[in-house]
Amino acid sequence: MQTKIDKANRLSRVKKILDLKKCSHILITDTVDVEYICGFHSSNACALISRRKNLFFTDFRYKEAARAFTRAHSEWRFVEAKENDFSILKEFCPAGSIVGFQSTDLSVDRFDRLSRSLKKRRFIKLADSLTNVLASKQEFEIDLMHRAALIGDDAFARTLDFSSPGKTEKEVAYFLEQECRNGGSEKPSFDTIVLFGDRCALPHGKPSDRTLKKGEWVLIDFGCTVGGFSSDMTRTVVAGRANPRQKEVYGVVLDAQQKARDCVREGVAARVVDRCAREEIEKAGYARYFGHATGHGVGRRIHEPPRVSRDNKAILQRGTVITVEPGIYIPRFGGVRIEDMVVVEPDGSRLLTHAPRQLIELNV
Amino acid sequence: MQTKIDKANRLSRVKKILDLKKCSHILITDTVDVEYICGFHSSNACALISRRKNLFFTDFRYKEAARAFTRAHSEWRFVEAKENDFSILKEFCPAGSIVGFQSTDLSVDRFDRLSRSLKKRRFIKLADSLTNVLASKQEFEIDLMHRAALIGDDAFARTLDFSSPGKTEKEVAYFLEQECRNGGSEKPSFDTIVLFGDRCALPHGKPSDRTLKKGEWVLIDFGCTVGGFSSDMTRTVVAGRANPRQKEVYGVVLDAQQKARDCVREGVAARVVDRCAREEIEKAGYARYFGHATGHGVGRRIHEPPRVSRDNKAILQRGTVITVEPGIYIPRFGGVRIEDMVVVEPDGSRLLTHAPRQLIELNV
Repeated sequence: MQTKIDKANRLSRVKKILDLKKCSHILITDTVDVEYICGFHSSNACALISRRKNLFFTDFRYKEAARAFTRAHSEWRFVEAKENDFSILKEFCPAGSIVGFQSTDLSVDRFDRLSRSLKKRRFIKLADSLTNVLASKQEFEIDLMHRAALIGDDAFARTLDFSSPGKTEKEVAYFLEQECRNGGSEKPSFDTIVLFGDRCALPHGKPSDRTLKKGEWVLIDFGCTVGGFSSDMTRTVVAGRANPRQKEVYGVVLDAQQKARDCVREGVAARVVDRCAREEIEKAGYARYFGHATGHGVGRRIHEPPRVSRDNKAILQRGTVITVEPGIYIPRFGGVRIEDMVVVEPDGSRLLTHAPRQLIELNV
Repeated sequence: MQTKIDKANRLSRVKKILDLKKCSHILITDTVDVEYICGFHSSNACALISRRKNLFFTDFRYKEAARAFTRAHSEWRFVEAKENDFSILKEFCPAGSIVGFQSTDLSVDRFDRLSRSLKKRRFIKLADSLTNVLASKQEFEIDLMHRAALIGDDAFARTLDFSSPGKTEKEVAYFLEQECRNGGSEKPSFDTIVLFGDRCALPHGKPSDRTLKKGEWVLIDFGCTVGGFSSDMTRTVVAGRANPRQKEVYGVVLDAQQKARDCVREGVAARVVDRCAREEIEKAGYARYFGHATGHGVGRRIHEPPRVSRDNKAILQRGTVITVEPGIYIPRFGGVRIEDMVVVEPDGSRLLTHAPRQLIELNV
């Protein structure tokens, strides 16, 4: 897989916000977003971008790595700074500056400290303009997520062979995580969910010592990490022959998921995708059993904007990677969720998850 | 190990803040802090506490779990609420209320939404009063961290046997993580650091394909998770006989770490502990090679208040669990860090990490 790194592209898109928002500077305080924009990985960094200069600040722990980074990326300058100390920004951002900041990231306390450190500067909330630039992923980033998803597909297939009556949720979850790791995943992209039977009615349950019985649901929701990028997938299967009610509920979720995927494309509002899934489930009479959003963005974080929810008017951007994951959860019966990761494209979407979506009845 | 759950204790300490800060309500928006106070685990929750009522809010995904929780914990009432929707708080928090909020957690945007949803209420920053209550851990929480630390001690011992010349940093990190998992750890409490030779000069380096050579440093920084609580430890050993310079640098860090641990006790300022370590390293002439803080709080998160740093005046509370982890990092030579987890006690501190601190020379 070719991983063409196109960093200039995102930085130049961020710089356009300077004109759009009439700022002299953009301050990026979310460390993950700093990595999106400049490519430098750390657990503490911020970046200050103006029309002519690109600075990033990190602390002593990353000094050597930061120096090596700037040698290879001459468009960035590195300045050593203590964690949470904004006073150093003063010298790079003169009085009278108009500073766009991440109001979705900065806490009330940190913003107070920032504005006390930088008196006589005006602050502007960046909000959606920045979110959009970061939501739209670059080709090499999509490739990494695709690799993560492929490792997940393989691990999932082997985990089905392993999942037999008598195994516990924890055992299956552990097996799956080992398979992901052996396949090249750096770490789980979130806490693995493996649930059996009626416990599948918990959309975010934790694996327990409950053992699998013949005829029960097996719900598996997990993800891998490659190059710092996450994957996310869910499948629900039956340990043995599915009964008619299981088949019916599964069929409704499958239709809803397909409908939602069909309406993903550049320019569509996130809430429209949610509505496609929701209407299908409502039509079948299961509306009250689908209470969460249809999906979310994925990237360096497992949950990123945009939420694919009932009320999110955000317009899907080309290159954004989202999950499509409707579900039906019925107390004492169990639950079904089917989740794929897709890339938003001009004329539709591209699947990154390849595991089959048809109902699998394990031969147990 | 006995794990006596004493939830009422922390909730009652939180309620004292109502008088202290002259609030009618306390709003907890950090989901992990909600778990600290009420014991309910989720990825999205907030809590509203007044003199007479304790409410927590979470979304559809956790509805079943929340109902089961309130059946067992009658002091709490559960209200279903959409993520990030503060309007539901209106009915529980009448006009004229004075609401203490987590200004260290709430972003500028979320606070704007909160204050738009709750007009005619006054908002007060809770800051340190709440931080102190949450920093001081309960006995069952310390027990969980101790169990996590013990798993780490054992896994570390076996990893030393595994670490021979020719192995890569990644291989050693993977082996260690498997051992932790097999020992009962739920997951790594953060990304495992394993570094060899001069790469140990990177305080926060990532394991690479670099192979171990005889005579080199091996730095291992990792943690386990038990019951949602983290452990954190670092050891630095030599693969073979240490040379005189390695012994000297190691000795300085060991002395600094001991000095810092010796001055940990209830009532001492965090910065005093930092100073104890720093002075020892300065005396030996290595001041410029120790650029990070001496430690940090640990709990459900791997990094919690208080930072044990040069400028943190926060007073150590009884029951707070902190790391003590000075280090010396010299480009092209490598680095040494020794890190233990300790509990702050009235007359000193109690070690939760039991691996030896004396320099280990691997028999390779």
